[in-house]
Amino acid sequence: MPTPSAIPPAARRTGGLPPGTSCVVLGGGGFIGTHLCRRLAADGMRVLGFGRRQSFPEALEGITWLGGDFTDRAALARAVEGAEVVFHLLGGSTPESANIDPVADLGASAVATLHLLEICRAAAVRKLVFVSSGGTVYGIPRATPIPEDAPTDPISAYGISKLAVEKYLYLYRHLHALDYAVLRVANPFGPYQSPTRRQGVVAALMHRMMTAQPVEVWGDGQVVRDFVFVEDVAEALVTVAAHDGPQRVFNVGSGEGRSVNAVIADIAAVLEQPGIVPVHKPARATDVPVSILDIRRIREATGWVPRTPWLAALEATAEWMRHSYR
Amino acid sequence: MPTPSAIPPAARRTGGLPPGTSCVVLGGGGFIGTHLCRRLAADGMRVLGFGRRQSFPEALEGITWLGGDFTDRAALARAVEGAEVVFHLLGGSTPESANIDPVADLGASAVATLHLLEICRAAAVRKLVFVSSGGTVYGIPRATPIPEDAPTDPISAYGISKLAVEKYLYLYRHLHALDYAVLRVANPFGPYQSPTRRQGVVAALMHRMMTAQPVEVWGDGQVVRDFVFVEDVAEALVTVAAHDGPQRVFNVGSGEGRSVNAVIADIAAVLEQPGIVPVHKPARATDVPVSILDIRRIREATGWVPRTPWLAALEATAEWMRHSYR
Repeated sequence: MPTPSAIPPAARRTGGLPPGTSCVVLGGGGFIGTHLCRRLAADGMRVLGFGRRQSFPEALEGITWLGGDFTDRAALARAVEGAEVVFHLLGGSTPESANIDPVADLGASAVATLHLLEICRAAAVRKLVFVSSGGTVYGIPRATPIPEDAPTDPISAYGISKLAVEKYLYLYRHLHALDYAVLRVANPFGPYQSPTRRQGVVAALMHRMMTAQPVEVWGDGQVVRDFVFVEDVAEALVTVAAHDGPQRVFNVGSGEGRSVNAVIADIAAVLEQPGIVPVHKPARATDVPVSILDIRRIREATGWVPRTPWLAALEATAEWMRHSYR
Repeated sequence: MPTPSAIPPAARRTGGLPPGTSCVVLGGGGFIGTHLCRRLAADGMRVLGFGRRQSFPEALEGITWLGGDFTDRAALARAVEGAEVVFHLLGGSTPESANIDPVADLGASAVATLHLLEICRAAAVRKLVFVSSGGTVYGIPRATPIPEDAPTDPISAYGISKLAVEKYLYLYRHLHALDYAVLRVANPFGPYQSPTRRQGVVAALMHRMMTAQPVEVWGDGQVVRDFVFVEDVAEALVTVAAHDGPQRVFNVGSGEGRSVNAVIADIAAVLEQPGIVPVHKPARATDVPVSILDIRRIREATGWVPRTPWLAALEATAEWMRHSYR
C-alpha cells in the first residue's frame, strides 16, 4: 500500500497559480503525473487526470480521472475542454524502445502532440506545460553543467521526438499565441517510480537490493547523471505554470552529478546493505557518458531551487518502496 | 523546350567523387535534382534518378530513372540498392502547406526519412547527403549572417521536420555508422525552377513580368533573403559528397542578402522592363524577416564558394525561362 512521501511538502510559494485554476494533467497516472495531481489538488486547484492507466490508483483517490489514450483525439478533446492550464507528461516510450522503432515513437510523441496542440488552440487553453527530457535532448555534452542553449544532438530517437515537440510548441506560440513552457527534467526519482518498468535507475537499483536480486548496471557504472527528487520536479511544474517571462525552456535538475557507482553505494548505505557488488552488463549506445544540467535559468527566472537533500530523498524513496513492493 | 543554362559549368574540382561512383538522386526530377543528375552524369558518375515525376523530362534524357513515391518503401529499396552515395532531395511540402497540415508534413518528411535510413543501413550505403532548408531551420535569426551553430527555432512546421531529419541522420551515424552530410541551402534559383508551383520567388516574379501579370509580393517586400544559383548548389552537393572531415552540417548560400524589392528591380533590369510596380499582399506568418547564411564553414572545410555572379545567374534564368514558358 503506497504511502505519501515522508518528506513534508515544500512550503507553498506565493505567486503560484490562483486556487481554483482548472488544470489537466495528461499522463496524470504516471510517475511524475501522480505527484503533480496530488500537489495541484493540495494547492486547491481543480484537477483532472488523463491517461491510459493509473500506476498507483490509491495515490490518486479524490482526483477526477478520465481514462483514455493519447492517440484518441476525441478523448483528449474531452479532457482538455475547459482547462486553463494543460500539463503534458505523455509519451509511452523509453530511450531504448524508441531506437528500436523510431517511427512509432515519433507517432506517439510528436504526431500526438500536434493533435493536442490543435485541441488546445480550439479550446483556448491559456498555457501548456511540457515535460521534456533533460537527459536526452542534448546528446553528448560539450561541457557540463549543460545550459539550455547548448547544442541539441540527441543520440536516441526518444530525444529527437521530445525536441520536435519543443519546436512545435514554439511554432504554435508564434503562429497562434498558445503560451507554453518546457521543462527539461534530468533524472527524476522518488516514490511512485516503478522499479520494474525501466523508469529510472534509482528505483530499479533500490528494488533489486531490497529483494536480494543481483544489482545490474549497464556499462562500468561511471556514467554520471543528475538526479532530481520528484517532489521538486512537481514544484518546478507548478512554479513554471504560473511564471510569466521571456524564457520558456528550463532545465530542472539538482545541478549536481553522481556516478551510478556512487548511487549504488548511497542506496546501499540507506538500506544498510554494505558490500553490494554490482554486475556489469554491456554499455548502451543511447547512454550519454555524462549529463548534469545547469539550473541557473529557472532559479533566476522563478526562484525555484531543488529543496530536497539527496540522502533524505533516497530515504523517502526507500520508505515508500518498503511499503509498496515487499 | 528547356535549354541548359547559358552559364558554362564550373570547372571540375579535383577531389570530387571518383568517376563511376554509383549515385542515387532521390527527388531527381525536381528543381535541384534535375541539375544534380545532370552534373553527376557529366562528371562520369553512374546516376539513378528516383521520384514521383520529372518536372522537365528533356533535361534528364540519358539519365537512368526509376519512378516511385518516397512513401513506397519497396520502390525506395529498389532505388537505393547498390548505391554508394544517396542524395536525399525529397520532401513534397512547402513552408505554407506544412503549417496547414503539420502531421502530413512530418509523415512525408521525417517518417519517410526514417524508413530511408533503415533501407540505407541495410544496403550499406557509404554516404547520405541531405538537402535541408537554410531558410527555415533557423527561424528568426538573432544575428546575420547565420552560422550553422546558431539556435534553430523554426517558425514553420516545414523547418521542424527538416530539422528532425537532420537529427535522425546524426543519430544513425552514432548508432549505425551511416555517414552523412547536411546542406542547409538558402533560397536556390535558376533554370528548371517552376514559376507556378511556389518553388521560389525569383522564378515566380520573373515569370509574372515576362507574361505581363501583376507582380505580387507577400508583405512590404523588405524581407531579405540569400539567393544562391542552383548550379552552385549542385556543385556544393558534389563537393560535400566527396568531403571527409569532422563537420557534417553546412550552410550553402551566396553569403549576401537581397530584399525582395531589390530582386524585383534587378529582374526588371535584366528583362528590360522598367517601371514595374509590385502589388503588395498581406505578409505571411511563416516568413522570417531576414535570412542570410554564413558560408564560412563549407568554404574553409571544402573550398566551395558560390561562383556565379548574381546578375549573370538572373540572365541565365531568364534565358531558360524565355525558351520554356513562352
